[in-house]
Amino acid sequence: MSAAQDALARVALNQVVEPGRFRLLDRVSARGAVDVRDELLAMSGESADHQLVAQRLRAVDPAAVLERAHRMGLRWVVPGDPEWPSGLDDLEHVEPLHDRSGVPLGLWVKGPLRLDALARSVAVVGSRSSTAYGTHVAREIACEVVDKGWGVVSGAAFGIDQAAHRGALAGEGPTVAVLACGADRIYPKDHETLFRLLAQQGAIVSEAAPGWAPMRVRFLARNRLIAALTRGTVVVEAAARSGALTTSTWADRLSRPVMGVPGAVTNPLAQGVHQLLRRGGSLVTSGAEVLEHLGAAGEHVTTEQRGPDRPRDLLSPVDRQVLEAVPLSRPASLESVARLAALETGVVKGALESLAGQGMVVHTARGWRQGAASSDRPLPFLDSRG
Amino acid sequence: MSAAQDALARVALNQVVEPGRFRLLDRVSARGAVDVRDELLAMSGESADHQLVAQRLRAVDPAAVLERAHRMGLRWVVPGDPEWPSGLDDLEHVEPLHDRSGVPLGLWVKGPLRLDALARSVAVVGSRSSTAYGTHVAREIACEVVDKGWGVVSGAAFGIDQAAHRGALAGEGPTVAVLACGADRIYPKDHETLFRLLAQQGAIVSEAAPGWAPMRVRFLARNRLIAALTRGTVVVEAAARSGALTTSTWADRLSRPVMGVPGAVTNPLAQGVHQLLRRGGSLVTSGAEVLEHLGAAGEHVTTEQRGPDRPRDLLSPVDRQVLEAVPLSRPASLESVARLAALETGVVKGALESLAGQGMVVHTARGWRQGAASSDRPLPFLDSRG
Repeated sequence: MSAAQDALARVALNQVVEPGRFRLLDRVSARGAVDVRDELLAMSGESADHQLVAQRLRAVDPAAVLERAHRMGLRWVVPGDPEWPSGLDDLEHVEPLHDRSGVPLGLWVKGPLRLDALARSVAVVGSRSSTAYGTHVAREIACEVVDKGWGVVSGAAFGIDQAAHRGALAGEGPTVAVLACGADRIYPKDHETLFRLLAQQGAIVSEAAPGWAPMRVRFLARNRLIAALTRGTVVVEAAARSGALTTSTWADRLSRPVMGVPGAVTNPLAQGVHQLLRRGGSLVTSGAEVLEHLGAAGEHVTTEQRGPDRPRDLLSPVDRQVLEAVPLSRPASLESVARLAALETGVVKGALESLAGQGMVVHTARGWRQGAASSDRPLPFLDSRG
Repeated sequence: MSAAQDALARVALNQVVEPGRFRLLDRVSARGAVDVRDELLAMSGESADHQLVAQRLRAVDPAAVLERAHRMGLRWVVPGDPEWPSGLDDLEHVEPLHDRSGVPLGLWVKGPLRLDALARSVAVVGSRSSTAYGTHVAREIACEVVDKGWGVVSGAAFGIDQAAHRGALAGEGPTVAVLACGADRIYPKDHETLFRLLAQQGAIVSEAAPGWAPMRVRFLARNRLIAALTRGTVVVEAAARSGALTTSTWADRLSRPVMGVPGAVTNPLAQGVHQLLRRGGSLVTSGAEVLEHLGAAGEHVTTEQRGPDRPRDLLSPVDRQVLEAVPLSRPASLESVARLAALETGVVKGALESLAGQGMVVHTARGWRQGAASSDRPLPFLDSRG
């Protein structure tokens, strides 16, 4: 059986089978598309449903379908192709969700990006009705990860999805939209410009046959591909029962990291994400933190955000301990500073002299107090009454 | 040795020793205050520092100190007292932080609340320069937990601390402020009203001797008490290097749950909390979730926030699967619905008839479409082009 025969059998099956029909897909994964197609064709004598499938299958001319698709700028990528994204193979025998699972028969693809480039990619998904905050963060994260050479996969929907694609496009990085309808369609229609950019610089992908409409079950099946194509899924904003959470459930079933961007607890679109985080998802606040979760150990280690260094941070532990025991305004005796610092008076005396040399403490007639250089600004702990 | 003698020896030591001097405190925990005081008095021949301590100790008249404190409305609570909060005993031999640790010699207390009531309490702490969001959430959480019979402990500072106390007071629940200065002082001064309310309805507590000023090292020592007095610590808003994080570090060392309230990643005061959550702290969004972490198993189990029930949620799985395969506007044939639903046509026909009886689908001349009762509002997945 040639690769071309296999690809054509997959086209034929794709015309009559809904995305994510895992019983059939698992059979194809195990025994090949030609076998399964022939078996279905031979079942004409069985139930009315089977007769219908056989009848529809006989009516398909896969070469003509491929030909028409090519004219629309679509290519048909199947397992075994150099471009095939191997992450999808992990879908074989994964527990179904919403009665959908399995390795897709193939993917209809439009656009110059090769899908095997998604070996280093991340899904950025979330609410359709996102807030300005969510949109901003999704775009930032996408832009940051493409800047480090990673791709961004999403669903081209309103809200977070489009922001993720636009962030990746702004960073001139690889981005792929996985659709629930045929890859020849533009859904939602308002995203015409986005779809044109994706077709020019990234890729538009679907498991559904060209021409097929977006239906709820197809969205649910589609979400498993977004999770399986990527090394991990980030949910940016999601209401408590958001569809975006099915993508993260798929990521979890595929043992890929599930991440969530927190938000204000008063933001209803943070509720779904917070639930995800409470169930074990990883909290991320930036593209760098996303890559830290996904990258090879040490490949991306973020530096924790911290306040600016203050002069006192550069002091020895003893000098710092002494400085902290010196009052800001009302001077204190050597003995009092030593008691507060919990150090011997001799040690404290030496430290105070060293600190005085740096302008951090001042010796007055009434004792020691902090000097102008002791801090960039008064410490919040102390005020003039301290 | 009587309890009264022990209490007086503790007062004497308290007058000459900084809060959290763990070497001395651990010695007192092991051998008793009278022994340690006598030992210090006998060390007059040693170093200049020791001479100083002995000299100061000899100058203390603990009975007079107690008498003066009582006149200011302060009582002296020590280990062994019925009111002693046993959580503090866990501080013995805990690894020091900022060179401070140990079970305090005693606590100076003002206000009617008995400290043993803190057996069921939670620390709510955070930034002094909190946002309106943080202040709101701190107050809500405090109000919610006191409503369930729990107490709230904080530090009476600006920002999150005062919001936590005010939330607890608004809920008419127990609340305790632990100070870094003497319990007779009002710090910050602007919180005069809050201090009056705490002294009337809750308690103001300090390990520092009456009259002592708030100093940085005393705040660091104080934070260990906030953590040790409570069953867990919630950080509401905290910048990357906030002092509030030392309280959560103490909670962690004491094996008490550390919780954090998330915020927008664009809020600098969420950074410290997010770092806490990334290091293993638990994300909480409400008082109920806080109690779920702290309460006995099953005592407080929150119901996850979820969207409102929709009619379709009440359907059988098969009926729902069929309903989801029925287009919203453009009618589809029985065969098409069956294909999409991935079910036998016979099953689908029965389900459609049942759904039609509930007004959820409509049978038209051109096939089946969804009816008015199918959803409270159109599903976001579908539009009129669906």
